[in-house]
Amino acid sequence: MDAEHKFQVRKLEILDKSKGFIELLQQLTICDSVSDKEFEERFQEINSFGDDHLICVIEDDHSGKIIATGSVFIEKKFLRNCGKVGHIEDVVVDSAARGMQLGKKIIEFLTDHAHSMGCYKVILDCSLENKAFYEKCGYRQKEVQMVKYFV
Amino acid sequence: MDAEHKFQVRKLEILDKSKGFIELLQQLTICDSVSDKEFEERFQEINSFGDDHLICVIEDDHSGKIIATGSVFIEKKFLRNCGKVGHIEDVVVDSAARGMQLGKKIIEFLTDHAHSMGCYKVILDCSLENKAFYEKCGYRQKEVQMVKYFV
Repeated sequence: MDAEHKFQVRKLEILDKSKGFIELLQQLTICDSVSDKEFEERFQEINSFGDDHLICVIEDDHSGKIIATGSVFIEKKFLRNCGKVGHIEDVVVDSAARGMQLGKKIIEFLTDHAHSMGCYKVILDCSLENKAFYEKCGYRQKEVQMVKYFV
Repeated sequence: MDAEHKFQVRKLEILDKSKGFIELLQQLTICDSVSDKEFEERFQEINSFGDDHLICVIEDDHSGKIIATGSVFIEKKFLRNCGKVGHIEDVVVDSAARGMQLGKKIIEFLTDHAHSMGCYKVILDCSLENKAFYEKCGYRQKEVQMVKYFV
């Protein structure tokens, strides 16, 4: 790709469904096709949280496709003097667009957002393989993630 | 403690501030004293999310003190067919009330809530020392938690 590509990070828009947003998520995990109605309902639900739940994307100007995304939501606590914590989730870069630091751009955008919202920390869970990437983004390992599946 | 103790799990109420709720959180992490006004504002903020952010407590009938707590919030996603994930946070049992399975009661309550809200999984982060406890609650280790502090 040439130097004209700017790869700006911006908020998810409702039209991004037609630009491959769901297909991009499918590279991360199970994500069957979502109807336009389901997408719009969930979009509005998340939007209703305002700056407390932000999903960002990078669109490739040339192809018009969404090639990277990530989300952060702000949890409100009582501890740490009624502190807030940012939770980063669902970070994925198109397999055809790796090696261009798009993941780093996404993480920086989400981290900056959590900081500007007054969070005292940001956390995320990742596989051991991805640990080195997040260390380059200024993160360090702290605890272990436990999970219980219902399905 | 005798058999009359029921140790029922219930939702956090605004009066729980005067029953040692903040002092209990101080056993978990840094948590300076919170004014009544700050507490009420944060309480209403969290309450406005309804069932999407639940904080539960166990009150000791005899002493009238809050001796265990935990929270869960429901994250709304696009992946997994617009799925939802429960995030458990801030689980603590009074150091004087350990060994009575109160932590397990709290986790079961929060896990059941996430299940009833339609989540496909529940996740939480814990130290390696607490991993065995969560395994007894039906959880298993999956990923690692990464963190970035702003303060």
